[in-house]
Amino acid sequence: MKKLIKNGIIVTAADTYKADILVEEEQIAAIGCNLPEEGAEIVDAKGCYVFPGGIDPHTHLDMPFGGTVTKDDFESGTMAAAFGGTTTVIDFCLTEKGKPLKDAIQTWHEKSRDKAVIDYSFHLMISEINEDVLGELPAVINEEGISSFKVFMAYKNVFQADDETLFRTLLTAKELGGLVMVHAENGDVIDYLTKKALAEGKTDPIYHALTRPPEVEGEATGRAAQLTGLAGSQLYVVHVSCADAVEKIAEARSKGFDVWGETCPQYLVLDQTYLEKPDFEGAKYVWSPPLRDKKHQDVLWNALKTGVLQTLGSDQCSFDFKGQKDLGKEDFTKIPNGGPIIEDRLSILFSEGVKKGRISLNQFVDMTSTKTAKLFGLYPKKGTIAVGSDADLVLFDPAAERTISAETHHMAVDYNAFEGLQVTGEPVSVLSRGEFVVRDKQFAGRAGRGQYQKRAKYGELLDTSENPKISI
Amino acid sequence: MKKLIKNGIIVTAADTYKADILVEEEQIAAIGCNLPEEGAEIVDAKGCYVFPGGIDPHTHLDMPFGGTVTKDDFESGTMAAAFGGTTTVIDFCLTEKGKPLKDAIQTWHEKSRDKAVIDYSFHLMISEINEDVLGELPAVINEEGISSFKVFMAYKNVFQADDETLFRTLLTAKELGGLVMVHAENGDVIDYLTKKALAEGKTDPIYHALTRPPEVEGEATGRAAQLTGLAGSQLYVVHVSCADAVEKIAEARSKGFDVWGETCPQYLVLDQTYLEKPDFEGAKYVWSPPLRDKKHQDVLWNALKTGVLQTLGSDQCSFDFKGQKDLGKEDFTKIPNGGPIIEDRLSILFSEGVKKGRISLNQFVDMTSTKTAKLFGLYPKKGTIAVGSDADLVLFDPAAERTISAETHHMAVDYNAFEGLQVTGEPVSVLSRGEFVVRDKQFAGRAGRGQYQKRAKYGELLDTSENPKISI
Amino acid sequence: MKKLIKNGIIVTAADTYKADILVEEEQIAAIGCNLPEEGAEIVDAKGCYVFPGGIDPHTHLDMPFGGTVTKDDFESGTMAAAFGGTTTVIDFCLTEKGKPLKDAIQTWHEKSRDKAVIDYSFHLMISEINEDVLGELPAVINEEGISSFKVFMAYKNVFQADDETLFRTLLTAKELGGLVMVHAENGDVIDYLTKKALAEGKTDPIYHALTRPPEVEGEATGRAAQLTGLAGSQLYVVHVSCADAVEKIAEARSKGFDVWGETCPQYLVLDQTYLEKPDFEGAKYVWSPPLRDKKHQDVLWNALKTGVLQTLGSDQCSFDFKGQKDLGKEDFTKIPNGGPIIEDRLSILFSEGVKKGRISLNQFVDMTSTKTAKLFGLYPKKGTIAVGSDADLVLFDPAAERTISAETHHMAVDYNAFEGLQVTGEPVSVLSRGEFVVRDKQFAGRAGRGQYQKRAKYGELLDTSENPKISI
Amino acid sequence: MKKLIKNGIIVTAADTYKADILVEEEQIAAIGCNLPEEGAEIVDAKGCYVFPGGIDPHTHLDMPFGGTVTKDDFESGTMAAAFGGTTTVIDFCLTEKGKPLKDAIQTWHEKSRDKAVIDYSFHLMISEINEDVLGELPAVINEEGISSFKVFMAYKNVFQADDETLFRTLLTAKELGGLVMVHAENGDVIDYLTKKALAEGKTDPIYHALTRPPEVEGEATGRAAQLTGLAGSQLYVVHVSCADAVEKIAEARSKGFDVWGETCPQYLVLDQTYLEKPDFEGAKYVWSPPLRDKKHQDVLWNALKTGVLQTLGSDQCSFDFKGQKDLGKEDFTKIPNGGPIIEDRLSILFSEGVKKGRISLNQFVDMTSTKTAKLFGLYPKKGTIAVGSDADLVLFDPAAERTISAETHHMAVDYNAFEGLQVTGEPVSVLSRGEFVVRDKQFAGRAGRGQYQKRAKYGELLDTSENPKISI
Repeated sequence: MKKLIKNGIIVTAADTYKADILVEEEQIAAIGCNLPEEGAEIVDAKGCYVFPGGIDPHTHLDMPFGGTVTKDDFESGTMAAAFGGTTTVIDFCLTEKGKPLKDAIQTWHEKSRDKAVIDYSFHLMISEINEDVLGELPAVINEEGISSFKVFMAYKNVFQADDETLFRTLLTAKELGGLVMVHAENGDVIDYLTKKALAEGKTDPIYHALTRPPEVEGEATGRAAQLTGLAGSQLYVVHVSCADAVEKIAEARSKGFDVWGETCPQYLVLDQTYLEKPDFEGAKYVWSPPLRDKKHQDVLWNALKTGVLQTLGSDQCSFDFKGQKDLGKEDFTKIPNGGPIIEDRLSILFSEGVKKGRISLNQFVDMTSTKTAKLFGLYPKKGTIAVGSDADLVLFDPAAERTISAETHHMAVDYNAFEGLQVTGEPVSVLSRGEFVVRDKQFAGRAGRGQYQKRAKYGELLDTSENPKISI
Repeated sequence: MKKLIKNGIIVTAADTYKADILVEEEQIAAIGCNLPEEGAEIVDAKGCYVFPGGIDPHTHLDMPFGGTVTKDDFESGTMAAAFGGTTTVIDFCLTEKGKPLKDAIQTWHEKSRDKAVIDYSFHLMISEINEDVLGELPAVINEEGISSFKVFMAYKNVFQADDETLFRTLLTAKELGGLVMVHAENGDVIDYLTKKALAEGKTDPIYHALTRPPEVEGEATGRAAQLTGLAGSQLYVVHVSCADAVEKIAEARSKGFDVWGETCPQYLVLDQTYLEKPDFEGAKYVWSPPLRDKKHQDVLWNALKTGVLQTLGSDQCSFDFKGQKDLGKEDFTKIPNGGPIIEDRLSILFSEGVKKGRISLNQFVDMTSTKTAKLFGLYPKKGTIAVGSDADLVLFDPAAERTISAETHHMAVDYNAFEGLQVTGEPVSVLSRGEFVVRDKQFAGRAGRGQYQKRAKYGELLDTSENPKISI
Repeated sequence: MKKLIKNGIIVTAADTYKADILVEEEQIAAIGCNLPEEGAEIVDAKGCYVFPGGIDPHTHLDMPFGGTVTKDDFESGTMAAAFGGTTTVIDFCLTEKGKPLKDAIQTWHEKSRDKAVIDYSFHLMISEINEDVLGELPAVINEEGISSFKVFMAYKNVFQADDETLFRTLLTAKELGGLVMVHAENGDVIDYLTKKALAEGKTDPIYHALTRPPEVEGEATGRAAQLTGLAGSQLYVVHVSCADAVEKIAEARSKGFDVWGETCPQYLVLDQTYLEKPDFEGAKYVWSPPLRDKKHQDVLWNALKTGVLQTLGSDQCSFDFKGQKDLGKEDFTKIPNGGPIIEDRLSILFSEGVKKGRISLNQFVDMTSTKTAKLFGLYPKKGTIAVGSDADLVLFDPAAERTISAETHHMAVDYNAFEGLQVTGEPVSVLSRGEFVVRDKQFAGRAGRGQYQKRAKYGELLDTSENPKISI
Repeated sequence: MKKLIKNGIIVTAADTYKADILVEEEQIAAIGCNLPEEGAEIVDAKGCYVFPGGIDPHTHLDMPFGGTVTKDDFESGTMAAAFGGTTTVIDFCLTEKGKPLKDAIQTWHEKSRDKAVIDYSFHLMISEINEDVLGELPAVINEEGISSFKVFMAYKNVFQADDETLFRTLLTAKELGGLVMVHAENGDVIDYLTKKALAEGKTDPIYHALTRPPEVEGEATGRAAQLTGLAGSQLYVVHVSCADAVEKIAEARSKGFDVWGETCPQYLVLDQTYLEKPDFEGAKYVWSPPLRDKKHQDVLWNALKTGVLQTLGSDQCSFDFKGQKDLGKEDFTKIPNGGPIIEDRLSILFSEGVKKGRISLNQFVDMTSTKTAKLFGLYPKKGTIAVGSDADLVLFDPAAERTISAETHHMAVDYNAFEGLQVTGEPVSVLSRGEFVVRDKQFAGRAGRGQYQKRAKYGELLDTSENPKISI
């Protein structure tokens, strides 16, 4: 079981060079310029970049939300991800107050079992800190290999945690080797503005954005960052959408705090005017945080370029326009939040970022794969093209042109938020642990082949037989 | 002519993994886990990290200064560099107003010919911009492969350029594909403070520091960064020593300006109190900018960690304590500026940075090698461990303990500024283009084997037969 | 009933000049250089500054706290205030959730009736916003003349309001013409740190400071300021103690937000080491926010000088060391918070501020009197020396030297936090509405002569018969 | 010689109240509510504010510039000033390198003698620091009463001083009690951009603005502020036009530096698009620094409101459109810089600032009069309405409406930059040292009655017989 990928240009988070890759079984066995071809299936990557498979740090597959469930489950979602060059997803396991964490994890294992086309892992949501939760966490980290915990500062009376919970989660994460993720919006203010808007008869999708302005994200981001500094812990801010939040992360980092930030394709490309589309079409563009005024986009791009933000997540959370998004036709608060992005994350960043000179090719790889692997304990098994790493590889044609559309996408949802966007650059073939899951733009994988990935503690390399245990 | 380097842990700016490296002729031919041994010399790297050879972006070898000449020339300097794990240096070619640039470049070629043990290149100092200079620059870049230009904002009436020269150099660099380097201190203020100190009979070495306080570096750095933003050009600030300058660089980067910064081992480890050593010993610690109060060190480390500063230069510029430094015994302004650091740049950053948890192993490689290669047009020929790159390799024992001392160093100078500093981590063997220049801590190279390196334009990959021309 | 105050140097928030003041009945009738003396009692102010009577924006007289009651009530407290040159206090009326606001106000009227030596007014604490509270507020402002509302972000499960309450109070204040005051510390974090300290047996007074570090004040201050900006409302941050909070206020003001800040003498002069005094003496120095590291003092002084902070309150809240402070002997959380400062507010600011060149004489007047009058709707009846204003006057000897001591102070409490502090400058005589309350350093007033002051809405001049209604 | 000004509302930098003012000879003798009328001319100020006479800190009367001379001399200029409510101007005395300072001062005395309608004083330009200049300065300060010195960072090869001159002027000012004023634009960059524009045939007025962008003002302002901090001296930045400069001043002040800033009506109201007016009309709007994009205006207003900027100067420097401005018809660099503003400074600030709620009435007085008096050593003789001060008074009708126009203005120039601007609020009558210079909007003064004012050192009250010498 050997493959020799020839003639491609290998791109990692640091390097760009022409060489061939020898895959044996599931790993990369060698990289060279004249590797022996005998016994190996030859794969021609001429004209392609070879990237490490994308890692999506932020997906919601098969997730219940407001009485409905996301359209994409672990099968359709991971198949679409594969088409887009993503070979690992980290999904959010939701917990319920008062119930054992392991039950929630078990539920997520069941959702994904026999479904996933590519590898996957879980983050765990933390909604409360008490003796029961504290008692379970060591096993969650050490046995389940779940070393990242998400706290919500928004969704009052639903997911929202108070500052004490956030602070204690930070302290606990520091002690046990976890990374705290935060949805940073001030839920109290949003709750008030939302009720007020509804009371005034303001029910259209645009009010979703107007009732959660950038200031509430900036405030919450700053608060989380300051608590992180005080706790001496580590923080990962998900889906950063605006300058207000970027400034807070930059300030925290300049003080030496261990604060990281993720943004998403929608915030880089779309803007708040989309929510004003007629015929309730604005509902397609309802995310939390919401799309922002266009001026924020330059700030996000520069934050990616200068390392204030480090990763790109999809925040995949797909609902049909017909039958799901329209639950909120009379009331924007009932519009299921989120959209289908898992498939086009790499294409959009490549086309809008690399091609337009905003980020380098190596930064692209770092943002879509390597940094996520390192932050979340998947590295070096995942996240790079190096000897000994899993052969998760993307053959990417930088010259291919394509128009994003629901008609051609592979997500199980009836619209695409980027409909009509022309992108340059597209995955041609994708390998997951040495197997083609996409070959010449055709699906070549199968549901259930994806494996659950236990992850290392924050700051540690994933311990594999091939690699010594050294800190990053 | 093959070598197989086995059992080491390869570290690049992005990756850390265990694999073997096959060297053929001068380049890396393959990296793998079971590469064939036949015909190859086996080099055991067990227990060692294998780093890409260090690239020192900032040296002054065989340089005249105030009536004397640096003690280390291209022979002793590059030999010492090799011992320290550096396989390429970029030296500063000084020009004179009114004389052709090519004469200066020719002089530097002569200084280095038949001397250098490792590869080398030149930056070019720009002291004036006029029609003659503008006429010569295209050839300097395209024929000599010199794409970086240094402007001094200090040394009034000697090297100091006015703001118009700086601004025009920035505009010219943008047009031609160069990177402007700047020595950022306000020379006017320094000149006044210096004269005043001398007039008051303040002649001791400490007055060197007191007459060029952090504020003058902060001011000049900010000025250069603002002019860069206005010019839409690119800037590299050499030897950043203090928080004042770091803040200005961070601010410029947050505005999207293309501003980069270098610091040096002395600013990370030593401090201003060293200039107060009795018996004129303070003279050993006279750099410009000077050593600072200890509180600046944390700021510098965090700037390296967060990418506000990206590279580590040595600012190697060595003068004997006896016979050279003592030219300034009666007058601190006559103390030749600089010190011997070329040899211990990697050891100090590894020991103080990686071992103490201030930066990651990959950041170490980026700072000592990769980023310099990319910024100055040597990548991917230099600066990484990748197939097709020059086999400039350092086998580095991370556990070795050593005390830095003039008694054991290889620089041709009678003291060491880091005398007595205990460091963990040391190069064991060093290869330059596939040849040992240091083997098992013994010198194995020879003067004259080093080659002059033409460099690519700013932002471009070095065009080699193996690599397509793509932008970074 | 005329008095002619001669030969003094009149100082207002803007002016410093030599002139005489004619007082008729309770007001200032004329200011001039040769005013007719007939029918007037001549008061010689030679050698003295004549200041407008101090206005203390922040007192807690006769206030219940943790099972005990402040030692100074409206009688002893206002007598001491008068000795110190303060002629008006604004005390905090505490409310209880679920009870009518007017009941609380009534209680405070009863506490003060027949007691106060000088004039007084009330702020109202807001602990919840609901229909009942919203219904009462117009009457509170228009009939009671209470136009300032305090929200606590600390004291979890006691006074602490959530962000929704704060935000709605800001919106309501904007609509009705009120000024929101905020105690800005993150109560959630403090609550956790406090419980943790106690659980670890850390019960000494110093842990009061260590469990509420500057970061929690900075965070809450920034949060309140950001919500104010979003609400388009106005905010007054009480007792700012640290650089962290100053930075947030400065940032808000630079964005054009209507955010004001108060500090207190204790934060300008004392520091955290005081809490470590042996024999439980640290308990004398327990305030919330706590005393800080000395480095914060320069920041506070500069913030006063540059107008980032505008007022000086005492936060008078006095408890005996014996019998009250020692309730917390085994548990720092049981130490009643606060101290006796009402008397020495002016002396300390004059001595440490004006005499040491940190602020100007006019700024001194603005901080101790004028700005408070303007912000809280007492101006121009109070807060200045101008024709038509109440004759609240302080004859202040700038050369007098005095040592602050519990042995000589007039507060009803058994210690003084500034014991032993030598101050230059002291009130000699104090007039309240034209009557001496202190004459030649002897008490000349009487309990009950002080009058309750209704205040104007935020941003409006107090409407009196003599003055047209114009905005400030 | 008594006047009793009745029924007005007196406004000072701190106070707003209704009272009458008794003027005896040239000073204010009393302020009261029932002052005796006998022997006094009664002046009814009913419906008017009574302001202290405006002090214009920045005028260029009878000034040579580029081969021509400003149209307004000390006669027409001060008459127009009087109409606008200004009763004192401080003009700039230009010096020449190599010539005695006293010759320049003598020239300015001659220009103003028998001409000025109102009082006046001089700032002195410093173009070089050498032994001669240092020798003369004590007499300039102590005998001529000139305590403010202006340094130009722009106008290369004409007025521009190098950083050493600026730094030494700062040090000298600190020592002798002077205030350094700075024209902060980077002259080197401007010089280059200007030559480049001309070489490219870009000769229209708009290129005046495009060749001196906000960045060059921001840079120079920051540089001057940093040198001031280093020198421990004091700085006044004239004509601040943009956010870039405001940020630098705010930063300096937050560090405790003694840095002050002035803006001008043109930057608050007009913008860069005015330079694009057809038919060379843009030339009317050529100032240095130039008008900016409209977005800068909010920043300037907020800086005035929060005290980052403190004063409003006119930078009066008037040239006819026909015959003077058109010297630059073929070359924007030949357009005489400046415009006629001396007359409408107060009206514009009142109408655009106070009436629109951007600043308070008291701030208006501080900006137009009091702060200037204090900073430049005219206080308390000038700058306020207080007993003992000069009776420089403006009776200002806040309801009057007027349209600014060259047809009605009193400046000797053929256009008005604010032509057509409708303003609310206008001076009705103006007194200078107790004499009407404008009465019921008619001129009542005469050339030559204005007196030269010697000024106190920086930070000191002007020593008059009536006032003790105390620091501000």
